[in-house]
Amino acid sequence: MTAIIEGMLNGNVRSLAKAITIVENDRPGKKELLKAIFPRTGNAYLIGITGPPGAGKSTLTDKLIALLRQQGKTVGIIAVDPSSPFSGGAILGDRIRMQQHALDDGVFIRSMATRSHLGGLAKTTVDVIHLLDAAGKDVIIVETVGVGQDEVDIVKIAHTTVVVMVPGLGDAVQIAKAGVLEIADVFAVNKADREGAAKLVNELRAMLDMSTGDWKPDIFSTVARDDVGIADLLAGIYQHREYVHGKGLDQVKFKSNVRQELCTYLMDGIIELANSYPDFEQLVDNIYQKEITPLEGAEKLFKKMGVKNNWLTTGGDDAEKN
Amino acid sequence: MTAIIEGMLNGNVRSLAKAITIVENDRPGKKELLKAIFPRTGNAYLIGITGPPGAGKSTLTDKLIALLRQQGKTVGIIAVDPSSPFSGGAILGDRIRMQQHALDDGVFIRSMATRSHLGGLAKTTVDVIHLLDAAGKDVIIVETVGVGQDEVDIVKIAHTTVVVMVPGLGDAVQIAKAGVLEIADVFAVNKADREGAAKLVNELRAMLDMSTGDWKPDIFSTVARDDVGIADLLAGIYQHREYVHGKGLDQVKFKSNVRQELCTYLMDGIIELANSYPDFEQLVDNIYQKEITPLEGAEKLFKKMGVKNNWLTTGGDDAEKN
Repeated sequence: MTAIIEGMLNGNVRSLAKAITIVENDRPGKKELLKAIFPRTGNAYLIGITGPPGAGKSTLTDKLIALLRQQGKTVGIIAVDPSSPFSGGAILGDRIRMQQHALDDGVFIRSMATRSHLGGLAKTTVDVIHLLDAAGKDVIIVETVGVGQDEVDIVKIAHTTVVVMVPGLGDAVQIAKAGVLEIADVFAVNKADREGAAKLVNELRAMLDMSTGDWKPDIFSTVARDDVGIADLLAGIYQHREYVHGKGLDQVKFKSNVRQELCTYLMDGIIELANSYPDFEQLVDNIYQKEITPLEGAEKLFKKMGVKNNWLTTGGDDAEKN
Repeated sequence: MTAIIEGMLNGNVRSLAKAITIVENDRPGKKELLKAIFPRTGNAYLIGITGPPGAGKSTLTDKLIALLRQQGKTVGIIAVDPSSPFSGGAILGDRIRMQQHALDDGVFIRSMATRSHLGGLAKTTVDVIHLLDAAGKDVIIVETVGVGQDEVDIVKIAHTTVVVMVPGLGDAVQIAKAGVLEIADVFAVNKADREGAAKLVNELRAMLDMSTGDWKPDIFSTVARDDVGIADLLAGIYQHREYVHGKGLDQVKFKSNVRQELCTYLMDGIIELANSYPDFEQLVDNIYQKEITPLEGAEKLFKKMGVKNNWLTTGGDDAEKN
């Protein structure tokens, strides 16, 4: 373990890969590893890239990597991909495109499945971000598909979130429904050579004009496949970075991330603890038989664990009788 | 509160609406309410309807409601809608379509926002399902947009999950990426009069042929707007219900739901407890300053809470030195 930690902190790619595997698979040494590298975290610039399937996020990320490398920056990429039991890993094919960077030591790419993660996808993603960060990557890009809560949680961690849209996947109202507007710092309208691109940009602009936030997201038209508009997009990302840094929001974000991590450990801990109690299954069965409610079951468990607190039994329940 | 509970258990619509508001807004009396109605739950048939934005889920749900009502069944509907701070409630416009059932006492419709829910969307949805269930609804339909973890969690609760697809929102590989294949019990290919519908059905069928599960999902072509294919779809849903019931899977599901609820109360409880400790912010700050790691912070809190267990300090960490 010590060799892996030292290796990855010194920029050894194989050590970093091993460390990520330990974290992803919840293998022995995980806690020791995360503890050892934690003081070295908090330096990387985190970019989240999200949007609907088919928007061309992988291609766009690919081009951004190339540009960042030209600027001398080292890059870590976490591609969060839904895994389907039907298709297995096959649909990850478009990841292969990024493998042009495979021989570049300044780029480290890792794909992660969205399902079957012990401790949750968001948690594992944070841990892997810590590893890439501690390994000295200047920029870390997290690419997610979709706009579910898991993805939103992941994107929340990022300093700058790029939402990629594409004409033809539904109009702007559909996009608003998808819930991405509130998380975007920068918009990329990709495949901008397609019909409907200008309309999409206009609709987005109209929606953004209604927003009252301090930061007004910019919209960039790109054709990632042909490397069109990427430099402008990256400039837009940097502009948001300046804003974030100028306002001290990166520190605010780091603190909120740290708080979230603490809470995740508490939640994981309490569940592990509950499951280790010999009569846990009996308790579940009592609820199943409707002898007690789920809340009463939780109260009982807290009592058995010796938790010195009575918040559960003193809610505001008596405050309002109707 | 007693009046609300009695009212809703006796089928009073206004009492039910009040009860839901209490649960949604985490108002005083929530615990008492949920406790009182819990023994009356577990009777409704839960149908989940999900799929990408623009697939026509609301219209399809609307037609299913009409058909269920013709069959004499009472129906509760929970429409889970992303809320955007930009658009506010405006994008909920298509919900209005369902309001043709507004004067029908046998139908109760509630829209819920996906964000800003104390205690999480999935948790609140479960609580509202309990209320509709206890109020005697025969069938409860939960309609969700998107395929994020939150939506998947909600759909997991359902006895039968209908995934609605539509031609023109990307090919089947995109659909597989969206991660819905593994949660579908029944497929509806809606807007089946559009170009590409037959191709989508074929692609779906080809994917399903690769699956090895005990239950093979059927695919139904519908044009919800014109009320085409709805009866067949509902028959397909019932067929899955027979399967679920025959295998006793509804009981298995109820038990797993109950277990999940217990775990949610434990997690909510531990976070509330942690936040109530006077030095919680100091602890967060210590982590922020990198004096301790998030895991060490959690260990410290568990100790302060008096939790009689040492799992956190005895992981498998020493098992593998490298």
